[in-house]
Order: sequence, then C-alpha cells, then structure tokens
Amino acid sequence: MKLIRFGAAGKEQPGIVNDDGIWLDCSAFGTDWNESFFANGGPEALAGWLESNRPSCPVVPAHTRLGPPVARPSKLVCVGLNYVTHAREAGMEIPDEPVLFMKSTTSICGPFDDIVIPRIRSATGEEVAAQQTDWEVELAIVIGRECVRLSEQEAMDHVAGYVLHNDVSERETQLHRSGQWVKGKSFDSFAPLGPWLVTPDEIPDPGQLALWLKLNGEVMQNDNTREMIFPLPELIRYVSWHMRLLPGDIITTGTPFGVGMGLRPERYLRAGDEIELGIEGLGIARQRVTCDIDAMA
Amino acid sequence: MKLIRFGAAGKEQPGIVNDDGIWLDCSAFGTDWNESFFANGGPEALAGWLESNRPSCPVVPAHTRLGPPVARPSKLVCVGLNYVTHAREAGMEIPDEPVLFMKSTTSICGPFDDIVIPRIRSATGEEVAAQQTDWEVELAIVIGRECVRLSEQEAMDHVAGYVLHNDVSERETQLHRSGQWVKGKSFDSFAPLGPWLVTPDEIPDPGQLALWLKLNGEVMQNDNTREMIFPLPELIRYVSWHMRLLPGDIITTGTPFGVGMGLRPERYLRAGDEIELGIEGLGIARQRVTCDIDAMA
Repeated sequence: MKLIRFGAAGKEQPGIVNDDGIWLDCSAFGTDWNESFFANGGPEALAGWLESNRPSCPVVPAHTRLGPPVARPSKLVCVGLNYVTHAREAGMEIPDEPVLFMKSTTSICGPFDDIVIPRIRSATGEEVAAQQTDWEVELAIVIGRECVRLSEQEAMDHVAGYVLHNDVSERETQLHRSGQWVKGKSFDSFAPLGPWLVTPDEIPDPGQLALWLKLNGEVMQNDNTREMIFPLPELIRYVSWHMRLLPGDIITTGTPFGVGMGLRPERYLRAGDEIELGIEGLGIARQRVTCDIDAMA
Repeated sequence: MKLIRFGAAGKEQPGIVNDDGIWLDCSAFGTDWNESFFANGGPEALAGWLESNRPSCPVVPAHTRLGPPVARPSKLVCVGLNYVTHAREAGMEIPDEPVLFMKSTTSICGPFDDIVIPRIRSATGEEVAAQQTDWEVELAIVIGRECVRLSEQEAMDHVAGYVLHNDVSERETQLHRSGQWVKGKSFDSFAPLGPWLVTPDEIPDPGQLALWLKLNGEVMQNDNTREMIFPLPELIRYVSWHMRLLPGDIITTGTPFGVGMGLRPERYLRAGDEIELGIEGLGIARQRVTCDIDAMA
C-alpha cells in the first residue's frame, strides 16, 4: 500500500495511490495518517476498509499538491555518516556507532514543495542568504509501534513503512557556528518527505534499494542502501536504546557519497536550481530552490 | 497565574495553583494546556473563565501526581554551555554563539517523577546501567505564539511562561559514543518539567532569578540567571532564526556551574539519590533516582 496526504500545507487529507497510479481520497476512512492511526493498526484497518470502499473513494485531481505522507510525527531522528564514502567526503571519521541528531519537525514539507534557502545572520550580524545549502537523498523509516530498547530481531517488526527524504542541510550553521548539527538542519522546508509512505509488504528488502539525486539534470548521488555502515535493523535497535519511539516517528538513515560539501570546489544550492531524487520502489520527488532575500528591505 | 497538570502519566488533567497554594482542577475549562491552548489565547481566556468559575473548580487532592505543565510540545530545544563557569567545568570553549541541541519529547516527565538511570550497551556490547547520569538545573521557557526570525525586541512577547527543568544527561552517551549530544539527553525521565508553568506577569525579570540544585541535601548548583552568557531575548531570537517555533514549544536555557561531570573526582547519580531543585518564583521539584538493572534477567 502507498499512503499519501494531499492538499494545502497544514490542511492535507489522507489518500492512497491505487495500483493504476491514480490517487484516491480516503478522508472517508475518518483519520489522518498520524500517530493514532499507526498506533491502532491503521494500515491493516485501512486495507480492510478499502476492500469494500475503494470504488467510492473520490479521485484526487491531477496537480494537487502532495504533503508529507505522515502527519505531525513526534520527532524526526536522523543518522549521520552512515555510508563510508560520504563520511570520507565530509572529512569525518567512520563512526564506531551510529551518529544521531534531530531536525525540528517544523522543517517537514511535501515532496514537491520549494526548498527555501534560509536567511541567516552572518558572523558579523548582517542578514544574508545562507551560502551553503546542500542536498542529501535518504531512505526514511516510519515507526509503526511505540517501542524502547528493541533487539535487532524485533526492529523490523516496528516499521510501518518507508519514505523518500531529502535531508537538506545548511553547512555553515551546521558545522561552523558553534556546535551541534541541529542548527543547520531545521530551517523551514529542509525535510521534504514523500511522495508516498510505502508499507513493508511492497519493499521485500529495504537494504537493497538504489537511491539517487540529480541537480539540474546532473547525477550527483547514485548509490544503494546496501552500502550503509549500520544496516536498518541495527539503526532502529540503536535509536530505540537512546530514546522511546512513538508511532509515526521518522528515522532517516544517512546519505551516500555525492553531496555539495564533498565536491572540489564545493557546490551549493542557488535559487532556480532543480533537484530530483528517488529511491527504488519509493517514487520520485522534485524540489525547486528559491530564496526570498532579494525581496528584503 | 500558575498552570499545572495533574494525574497519572499520559492522562494528566489541567489545573492551576490558587493564591493560597491550593490546586484547582480546571478540566471544566475544556482544553488541556497544549499547543492549541497557547495558540488561541488560552491563558487570557482561562483567566477570564476563572473570574466566574473559580469557586466551582474542584480541589485536587493532596499527594496527586503532578505531570509536566505543558502537554506534548512539538519540540524541546536546549541551549548548552550558557554560563561561563559551567562551560569551563565541562572543559569546553565559551561559545561565540548559542549551542543548540534537542531532547526527544518522550523524555519529558513530571517534576516529582523518578529519574531512571538508563540501561545502555557498553562499548563491548553488554547491557549495563549507565555510569554517568548527571543533573542540570535550568530555566525553561514556554513559547506562546508561532514565530520565526524574531528580533530581540519581539522575543519576550512570544513567551507564554517559565518552568523549572532538570536537563538530565548521561555523559558517556552524550560525549564519548560517536557524536552529537542528543543520544545522552533523550532517555525516558530525562526531562522533568515543573511543578508549574508561571505566566510572565508573575516573573517581572526572568534574567534575575536564583536557581539551585541539591543532591542528598548538599548544595551542588547555586547561581542566578543573570550569569547567562546569552540572555533570554537573545536566546529566543537566536533559536527562532534556526527553526520555526510553535506554541507550547520548550526552550531550555543552559545550566550553571556545579554538575557532576565538573567535580574532581567526577560524581554521578546512583539509585537511591535524592535531587531537589528550584528557581525563584518557579517552585521546587524533587526527583528520586532509580535503576532497574538489578532486576534484569
């Protein structure tokens, strides 16, 4: 099953993608795809409900905006440096254990929404457009059941689905403005999620998925989730040993080689750039880069 | 006004502290002290409602558990190293800009709940009790209105209230197990909040508040919020330039000198320890330290 949420930002309605690719409005099911939905066996109940109600679900008009396929997760936990070649390009050590950080959930947006280059204060206090906004294609996991201190064997039973994610990162504030990455990871529009949440039955091996990202048509990242340093069961186990996970929580699993920070010379996003990214089985997302700093007084 | 939430964990009801110190059950007001309450002028509406309804509010029985005074904030953003003497005892640089990190909101608990020393995996993979659980008394701010990129002048108008906080921290996982502090900050029970949320009218100058913490009756921390490196308006401004803040969001503002990590020899929490902490005008909290590792198979 592929879950979507469609409509204006903050007012999304729940839906699914039919086998023929058509989007169906499932708001008659009566709940959004949120914590309570996942906590209460929502995906299974929805599948049952669709058996008799699919024909009466309205078709969502083409060109409707897609939002993130999960509503208001309690947290967005991220894994850093989880591909050897990316850790090297970032000039960092291969970690002995997973590196965790968080993004503010207010950074979550739809898969085709614009990425907005943030206004930041320069080190001398001036309001400027950030110069080092970077891309990171990632596989994200959606947690299906509340859990803490899982074993590796239990981990995958707690996954409600998989989602394509761009872990947009502003490198100056992440790395060069006094400690802890969250500062460069949490701006509005920095966490596109989607197009869909795909349930595990459609992804037999999430540890063998091609993932890629193009900037203005040029392939920048092109790798496979099999190259992760810490594979998914170990990552989920590890996170669950450091914090309680709630249904709907999102864990992103790190980006492979090919971010702008790793290029020589470094290359960062500019207004007008177009990003396209995808993961095998999880669809394609596209984001246009904008910046409103020119419009400032 | 002093807001409380009382009752069993996860099933708290909203209330207030009367001028005579009696707790009143305000569940008849019809909303919890949550994002929607703060977003919709809840504190002012509650004050008006109390004018006619105070006599009919039931008294909360003595010895009822207090929960955190805010329900399910979207995030818990923390400031690190915000007192010079604490940065020195931690062996860290005085930061040029505020250091931000996050705690999982699942770590939030009531002001008199037990602090549970977490089970962690040792570097060699064994399940052990964490050895470096530490205390940090802090002033926490509750955001009253959605905001982004505030000026210093605007900052304090976005504060719904102040809360006493213990930023419990496990130093091994925070500092010595591969990057980013969130890992040692997010265990269950690591964010006691309360006893009360105190509205700004009762705290004329939050930048001049004594704060202290005792361990088993011995004063460990004893300082004043006037010693912050970055004062409150600058902190709130700064956080709002890195992420959108939502009503009910919590910003903790750093701990002063006197944590266990800074002692020689270092001293950490053990089962049976008793912590008492307080901030002028914000009440007192007490936490007993427990550990269930002996009960393990």
